[in-house]
Amino acid sequence: MASDFDATRKLFHLPDGLIYLDGNSLGPLPLAAVDKVAGMMRDEWGDLLIKGWNAAGWMDFKGLGNRVGRLIGAEPDHVILGDTLSIKVYQALAAGLEMVPERRVILSDTGNFPSDLYMAQGLTGLLKQGYTLKTVAPEDVAGAIDETVAVLMLTQVDYRTGRLHDMASLTRAAHANGAITVWDLAHSAGAIPVDLSGCNADFAVGCTYKYLNGGPGSPAFIYVAPRHADVAKPALSGWLGHEAPFDFDLDYRAHAGIARMRVGTPPVIALKSLEAALDIWDLVEMAEVRARSIELTSLFVDRVEAACPDLTLASPRDPLARGSQVSFAFEHGYAAMQALIARGVIGDFRAPDVMRFGFTPLYTTEKDVLDAVAILAEIMDNRLWDNPEYQTKSAVT
Amino acid sequence: MASDFDATRKLFHLPDGLIYLDGNSLGPLPLAAVDKVAGMMRDEWGDLLIKGWNAAGWMDFKGLGNRVGRLIGAEPDHVILGDTLSIKVYQALAAGLEMVPERRVILSDTGNFPSDLYMAQGLTGLLKQGYTLKTVAPEDVAGAIDETVAVLMLTQVDYRTGRLHDMASLTRAAHANGAITVWDLAHSAGAIPVDLSGCNADFAVGCTYKYLNGGPGSPAFIYVAPRHADVAKPALSGWLGHEAPFDFDLDYRAHAGIARMRVGTPPVIALKSLEAALDIWDLVEMAEVRARSIELTSLFVDRVEAACPDLTLASPRDPLARGSQVSFAFEHGYAAMQALIARGVIGDFRAPDVMRFGFTPLYTTEKDVLDAVAILAEIMDNRLWDNPEYQTKSAVT
Repeated sequence: MASDFDATRKLFHLPDGLIYLDGNSLGPLPLAAVDKVAGMMRDEWGDLLIKGWNAAGWMDFKGLGNRVGRLIGAEPDHVILGDTLSIKVYQALAAGLEMVPERRVILSDTGNFPSDLYMAQGLTGLLKQGYTLKTVAPEDVAGAIDETVAVLMLTQVDYRTGRLHDMASLTRAAHANGAITVWDLAHSAGAIPVDLSGCNADFAVGCTYKYLNGGPGSPAFIYVAPRHADVAKPALSGWLGHEAPFDFDLDYRAHAGIARMRVGTPPVIALKSLEAALDIWDLVEMAEVRARSIELTSLFVDRVEAACPDLTLASPRDPLARGSQVSFAFEHGYAAMQALIARGVIGDFRAPDVMRFGFTPLYTTEKDVLDAVAILAEIMDNRLWDNPEYQTKSAVT
Repeated sequence: MASDFDATRKLFHLPDGLIYLDGNSLGPLPLAAVDKVAGMMRDEWGDLLIKGWNAAGWMDFKGLGNRVGRLIGAEPDHVILGDTLSIKVYQALAAGLEMVPERRVILSDTGNFPSDLYMAQGLTGLLKQGYTLKTVAPEDVAGAIDETVAVLMLTQVDYRTGRLHDMASLTRAAHANGAITVWDLAHSAGAIPVDLSGCNADFAVGCTYKYLNGGPGSPAFIYVAPRHADVAKPALSGWLGHEAPFDFDLDYRAHAGIARMRVGTPPVIALKSLEAALDIWDLVEMAEVRARSIELTSLFVDRVEAACPDLTLASPRDPLARGSQVSFAFEHGYAAMQALIARGVIGDFRAPDVMRFGFTPLYTTEKDVLDAVAILAEIMDNRLWDNPEYQTKSAVT
């Protein structure tokens, strides 16, 4: 297919006068999502009531899993949606540790999203018996993979800098040392082509409210490689992962395949919103999204560096080494970002000094990039960030 | 307040010609929920985008927790919403086991909802070290509580029969033996007055899509007693339970109080639907709901026993010993329930022979009860259940 980004842009609600460069944090509203959710609530929940579980297919979300799976290079029927990303991280880690029972180390890096590290800490703290989380700097990961490592847990794209880990080579190194890999695709899914199958990944997890545009708090996903799907042991062994949930047996028997990674009752309303977002993703190819993303991020880097000498590129310069975001370091970055937001350019800030900008070809244009740079340059040229009203920090930044 | 059930009934979408006696499985749509969710999607997600987290209060759902908390006798700020019931069971069990580290037994009963048992099996299987789940018959629970028990995990209202466990006395017995209690309120919240605080309960969990009418798969809740709230150790230690989630520290530090039981990003759309349901609950008192429920269930029992001698009451006869449902055993119960459903009376069936009927004063009337009994009597008098089309089992029953 030829992805038509002028067409996909029209399928989102983009507030007038706003340049939205934060789709790496929360994607915008697909226009069809409101009616889709309202219709589901009225026609399915309202009219079908309990019969909705069968008649409206509320239990069958393998279809949505496959639509996410296409974007991340998963084999068919090996991705399932539900819960939150943190829960899915825990499931993957627990299953991974069970597969290498003689080892005690989860290896990760200090650039990982903190919640992934927290979930690992919660798991090792619960297990005791010498289980531990070891973190090294992102550039030291390859050298730290040895035969003590049970599970290598990495986020492919660094949430602050956009730096990409090499999934293929790190997975190979993990396997050569007898370790299992858990890849967090929070900033990969919908941002770059991912080839889970080709990389021989073991487990992968991700969220759907960033590049995938599912809505605030929309459900997470988990991938389990076909070779593990029937043997991975679910720690969170809820009834929806049971071989026969409606038999109401007293003993858990894991369902065959990826379905065992389901836990509780599916979040039907939220999944319906996600469905509207995936309807748009069905119209594009990830290779074309990536090509367009590289054009947009490269243009942004070039123009900002030319116009704003006080900003230092904090993302890899090589577009193939970064995801679909660009970060610039600036001592007064927090205030500069507030000044940008006040002028209708929405990015975000990550401590200590990172201004973060997400580029999302489905709805971001070259004009957006150029307009954003012009406004940023105006702020920098005139030190507009040096204004007390831009210093106050809010809860979510 | 004087609860006005004629008024609350008008706040639900109840399809014409349907008598809905399955609100114990999935509550009906509050009429206001569609606009509330659509409005949130359009005005908050659509227009505010990432700013919604602060500007629309997406992160602050303590308010909803307190509104559920009022219905279950929780102290203010000790209930929080999120995830699914199975996840909340796991959190409570894991935290409970940590509080009695020298013991290895989770005690439950064979009447418990299977997913609770499954989650316990998953947890003990992960922990190893001799951890085990022991189940006894519901009537043998009191006698089985001894000094080997770390955690007593019970569902207060039996999902098949409606039989009530005595929360006060079993909690007392558990404490006398040094055990921690985890109460599942799936069939209690909104069904009967619960007094968690007065019963000195330790942990409680429940779902919001049954009597509370939050919608299919709406978020679960967890309660932690004030004396444990700052010490309970979260096994599922996600970033939303961190003391300072937006500091992005690498080490987990549990938030003070119930907030530590949050895990990942909150399901904002689903919570908005639940909010519409809780707007209705705010109009009533649980004592009055219970009084009305007892009138309805008692009327149903009396009339069915008079009209349908082949049906055997499977719920406690004493209304104070049962929840807000009534079950009848009948050898051909599955087919009889299909015949009822075909005639617009929606209950459900649980193997091997239980016909289950939920009574929900917010929208169930005395006329509903009498009409349902008349239709059931017609089916029984004329053996209308003896029809091949009523034998086929569907996935969700």
